Amino acid sequence: MKRHVILFLALILTAFCAQAEDGSKLWLRYQTASNATIKFSGKKSPTTDIAINELSAQWRGAPISLALSTNKEIKALGNDGFRITGGESGVTIASSSDKGLLYGAFHLLRLQECGALGATIDITESPAYRLRILNHWDNLDRSVERGYAGKSLWEWEKLPAEISPRYREYARANASIGINGSVLNNVNASPTILTPEYLQKAKAIADIFRAWGIRVYLSVNFSSPKIIGGLETSDPLDKNVQLWWKQKAAEIYKLIPDFGGFLVKANSEGQPGPHDFGRTHADGANMLADALAPHGGIVMWRAFVYNPLSDDRARQAYEEFMPLDGKFRNNVIIQVKNGPVDFQPREPFTPLFGAMQRTPVMPELQITQEYLGFSNHLVFLAPLFEEFLKTDTYARGQGSTVAAVTDGSLMGHSISAIAGVANTGSDSNWCGHHFAQSNWYAFGRLAWNHKLSSAHIADEWIRQTFGDDNLLLKNLSDMMMRSREAAVDYMMPLCLHHIFSTNHHYGPEPWFWNPNMRRDWQPPYYHKADSAGVGFNRTSTGSNAVAQYFSPLRETYANLATCPENLLLWFHHLPWDYKMKNGRTLWDELCYRYARGVDETRDFQKIWDRMEHKVDADRFAAVRHKLQIQARDAIWWRDACLLYFQTFSAMPIPFELERPVYDLPRLMKQPRSTEAYILEGNYLIK
Amino acid sequence: MKRHVILFLALILTAFCAQAEDGSKLWLRYQTASNATIKFSGKKSPTTDIAINELSAQWRGAPISLALSTNKEIKALGNDGFRITGGESGVTIASSSDKGLLYGAFHLLRLQECGALGATIDITESPAYRLRILNHWDNLDRSVERGYAGKSLWEWEKLPAEISPRYREYARANASIGINGSVLNNVNASPTILTPEYLQKAKAIADIFRAWGIRVYLSVNFSSPKIIGGLETSDPLDKNVQLWWKQKAAEIYKLIPDFGGFLVKANSEGQPGPHDFGRTHADGANMLADALAPHGGIVMWRAFVYNPLSDDRARQAYEEFMPLDGKFRNNVIIQVKNGPVDFQPREPFTPLFGAMQRTPVMPELQITQEYLGFSNHLVFLAPLFEEFLKTDTYARGQGSTVAAVTDGSLMGHSISAIAGVANTGSDSNWCGHHFAQSNWYAFGRLAWNHKLSSAHIADEWIRQTFGDDNLLLKNLSDMMMRSREAAVDYMMPLCLHHIFSTNHHYGPEPWFWNPNMRRDWQPPYYHKADSAGVGFNRTSTGSNAVAQYFSPLRETYANLATCPENLLLWFHHLPWDYKMKNGRTLWDELCYRYARGVDETRDFQKIWDRMEHKVDADRFAAVRHKLQIQARDAIWWRDACLLYFQTFSAMPIPFELERPVYDLPRLMKQPRSTEAYILEGNYLIK
Repeated sequence: MKRHVILFLALILTAFCAQAEDGSKLWLRYQTASNATIKFSGKKSPTTDIAINELSAQWRGAPISLALSTNKEIKALGNDGFRITGGESGVTIASSSDKGLLYGAFHLLRLQECGALGATIDITESPAYRLRILNHWDNLDRSVERGYAGKSLWEWEKLPAEISPRYREYARANASIGINGSVLNNVNASPTILTPEYLQKAKAIADIFRAWGIRVYLSVNFSSPKIIGGLETSDPLDKNVQLWWKQKAAEIYKLIPDFGGFLVKANSEGQPGPHDFGRTHADGANMLADALAPHGGIVMWRAFVYNPLSDDRARQAYEEFMPLDGKFRNNVIIQVKNGPVDFQPREPFTPLFGAMQRTPVMPELQITQEYLGFSNHLVFLAPLFEEFLKTDTYARGQGSTVAAVTDGSLMGHSISAIAGVANTGSDSNWCGHHFAQSNWYAFGRLAWNHKLSSAHIADEWIRQTFGDDNLLLKNLSDMMMRSREAAVDYMMPLCLHHIFSTNHHYGPEPWFWNPNMRRDWQPPYYHKADSAGVGFNRTSTGSNAVAQYFSPLRETYANLATCPENLLLWFHHLPWDYKMKNGRTLWDELCYRYARGVDETRDFQKIWDRMEHKVDADRFAAVRHKLQIQARDAIWWRDACLLYFQTFSAMPIPFELERPVYDLPRLMKQPRSTEAYILEGNYLIK
Repeated sequence: MKRHVILFLALILTAFCAQAEDGSKLWLRYQTASNATIKFSGKKSPTTDIAINELSAQWRGAPISLALSTNKEIKALGNDGFRITGGESGVTIASSSDKGLLYGAFHLLRLQECGALGATIDITESPAYRLRILNHWDNLDRSVERGYAGKSLWEWEKLPAEISPRYREYARANASIGINGSVLNNVNASPTILTPEYLQKAKAIADIFRAWGIRVYLSVNFSSPKIIGGLETSDPLDKNVQLWWKQKAAEIYKLIPDFGGFLVKANSEGQPGPHDFGRTHADGANMLADALAPHGGIVMWRAFVYNPLSDDRARQAYEEFMPLDGKFRNNVIIQVKNGPVDFQPREPFTPLFGAMQRTPVMPELQITQEYLGFSNHLVFLAPLFEEFLKTDTYARGQGSTVAAVTDGSLMGHSISAIAGVANTGSDSNWCGHHFAQSNWYAFGRLAWNHKLSSAHIADEWIRQTFGDDNLLLKNLSDMMMRSREAAVDYMMPLCLHHIFSTNHHYGPEPWFWNPNMRRDWQPPYYHKADSAGVGFNRTSTGSNAVAQYFSPLRETYANLATCPENLLLWFHHLPWDYKMKNGRTLWDELCYRYARGVDETRDFQKIWDRMEHKVDADRFAAVRHKLQIQARDAIWWRDACLLYFQTFSAMPIPFELERPVYDLPRLMKQPRSTEAYILEGNYLIK
């Protein structure tokens, strides 16, 4: 009887544990094991301890030896690289550093979780980028700019005394995907971050991260010398200012010996910078670089600059930074968004990639879905990242992919880095949407190995996050792989861009025009719709931004016969009856794309509902709820954009397509606050 | 130059007149003609004057002779009947009364407008029902109960001094379709209507209507003797009460010599009545009948009664009135709603039709769309009316259709009548929705000739209201003919009934349950959904309401093998996995029906948009706007009902069907005021 009771209780407990999944474990849902044999005879460190613990707790295979190696081939893999060899009698993980052993351990465990281990193992891995960094746009009041997953992870008010268990979990999650850097605070930086009080808080975090191979960086406000230093000026050529920064750097490194460096947004969107003093970006960056150089720190100087008076925002980063190429210190790297405007559903790559050759350039990707549905829409971004990295810039002939020109292989720089604007917050599932975790994961995996395909990344992530049922894998992967293009279609097809709501960025507002506001913050500047057509002419008869690309790319984009249709309205202003390759008019094609986007969201709902019994109840319900929001929002986008553009095209929506279910006057009355949309999506048109 | 200017202005004017259509002309958009020769040599009356004017202004054919005839065959057609004969050299309209000439004139003009006149004409028409009456649920404060087309047509505050031109237009519209009676005020009657002040107002209206063949009736409050008469009681057996009514009748007929009579709602939903004094319906009706009899008036006594304690509301009208069959005076007719509950998208006919044989029974149909989308949804009701009238009651064997048992042909009563609850109001297009006019029209045409098909009526109405373009006719007719079944499907398929919002009746609220409210006013009483199934068992194992029908109908309904599936859940409570004839489970079939309803509304949008260039701009835009509302509402109904019923069925919505885009908690938070819905429909889920 007692045995039965125990068995019954065990069953209940198992069932309970198996069922309640809140997403907090991310992709690290390993079953614990208890019989792994892990040997290590090298110099122990907190990092090697972690590696051993991870393997001990989860490895279910042959005995493992960890080896710190001085072998030339192993050293050639760099500090983070590793080699794993072995078979059924034993496995060896070798690296020239303890970090490499940690990455190797996680890699091996990942392969185990994905059922990807064969009888013999012979794996060599070396990360594509030396610095693989998350940027947190977290403010000191714990709000997160463009964050949709709760509050900032960093409990500033409790640090340094209280250490949230989440710091360790965060570090572990990042280590498991090879991320080795974290900028803690918003690029719209508060100077307060550099005060002694806050540096102590940053130190407390850095002390947790260190063993996981993660270095802390900080965003700095260029006016810090004046605002917190009390100096007269923040002019980078001012000796006192230079001294202030030197001293500040020394102060930082005393607290955080492996501090990574500074991330700087200057003279952009109202942020202070060297231009305020008649100095150049190089002047500003080099001053900071000199302050950090003795300590091994770097400066990531953002190229996200644009002047409200320019007639093409997309030209400006290039125009402003190309003259400065080669003028930066060795420890400065220019951080550039993937596209020339701002993280739109699709953009061509920023021409600085490949063009800037003497100073290293690093991509800034956006993981948080500022323009892709917040944490309401399921949009797998690996295809966006992959598309970007694999685009050929032709900077040095064919094969000069964005990846090649930034990972150090083509340009030969010593620093190679890649940054992702994080989508994390205090939500129990970290990212708001259970599937948004896949984008954090994908960023990490591509930062490590940009040759991975999106499909492979999706497969890894699904197996580790949900399970390996064949139908589940097939269906979830299908949905994820289609989701980026679906979002493009229901939001901004054919490379329409920046037609979102000026205020909250969540929904459509292509009509918004406030003559008192910067033109380049408003949709008509970008879509230029009128009775003659739509789109931005960036060819030689327009802004000629196309000339910033290398041949043959520039010709390919400029020529309508060769311009990829998914970039059409980025480079061309075309009449509504322009003939697409499939014979449809441009207007009709826009209608079909929006319709397709809506249909895709409905299909995702069907796919997900079919998987109900293969997914735990809590996550199933949460995702279903959000897919409903996405389906409603897709209709909102479709109707708002088509009805607005129709006032110019004066052409009917093809009659075989669903008609709008809203009218324009009502659509134009939408509320403008972000909060409403974050919580509920658009319950349609409040 | 001057000629050109004049021509130009004429063109502009024509274009303007041709384009601006606000629906105020209803189906009477005749082009004026000016060369008709109309002869009449009989006894002139205001009615014959009207007939001559109508023909003079619009007839474009051969010279017409109007003839009041004492011919036996013509007299046999009754006062309203007529005969039209002739050909290209001349046409004769003959009737035994001036009203018949008027109806003949309108009929001829209708045929002309519809292009239905051949070289020779030989038409004989005699109305199916002697009394063809509109019921206006208009209140004296000009609100209209269950009205969605503005305020009451009757400007009580301005009468009798100011006569709105609309009274004449109303009368003309009704005369054109043969309606000859109008109950001016709400069945939830204010006693004030019988005060001298208001009788003067009613007289003013009656004086306008008379020439158009329309008699005025009034709804009376049974407590009038007490409330306005100051009597101690309103007991129908009280001599003073009887006297009061006699005097009141005399007073009325002095003002309105052709007053039609009283419409009475008594002991129903809180209205006073004979039961309050321990008297029967017959006692009450007969008292009023005796008061009216000397003047030729009638009493239309409503059978819409139901007791909150009964376990089946659908049984009660029959239970209460059958024992009284034959106990009413000759000038009493029992007015019965088409279905036993209350104007649902589909109901079987009320068994009183056919069962009550000694006292005449008249159908009450609802033209206003209280349960069918207000003035937002396009629902052509002719199919509902036709289905009802053509259903065989088997009261006297096969062929005892509802039409036959009410039009006097089978039961031999002298009074035959049919009433429609009007959908008119002060809106410029009279009915709120341009297409709702077709239901007023259809009621009139079926009251005149219940053998007409819905398709024929639709064709007539479209030709007169929109035009005779072939594609227009085909498409609009298609949409109208599908619309009733579409509404059934997206609201209450398979004869679900009474699952609308308890408060405003506009949208779905199948979950509503307030233990302090009458059970029979709330959805669960009707759908009885639980884990075992759904539907109301009205067979012998349930309420046995089915036994109120004649054989073989009762067996047909009771037997699952023969019960029409579109009446299934009216008569049966079935398990969710009950096998439909097509093999699907009941649950799946419900899902498919709701999906089909939604698809239909989208199809109507497509149909209408294709017709844009065949319809004037104003009416096109107005209808398009409402079709958008209907499409949104259909989704609301689908999601609310399926998600709610799913909590009982515990079965998935078939995966090939679109998933819900709302979740139940949100759906259950809908606002409860009517006004919001009237104006905008559901902008989805405020």
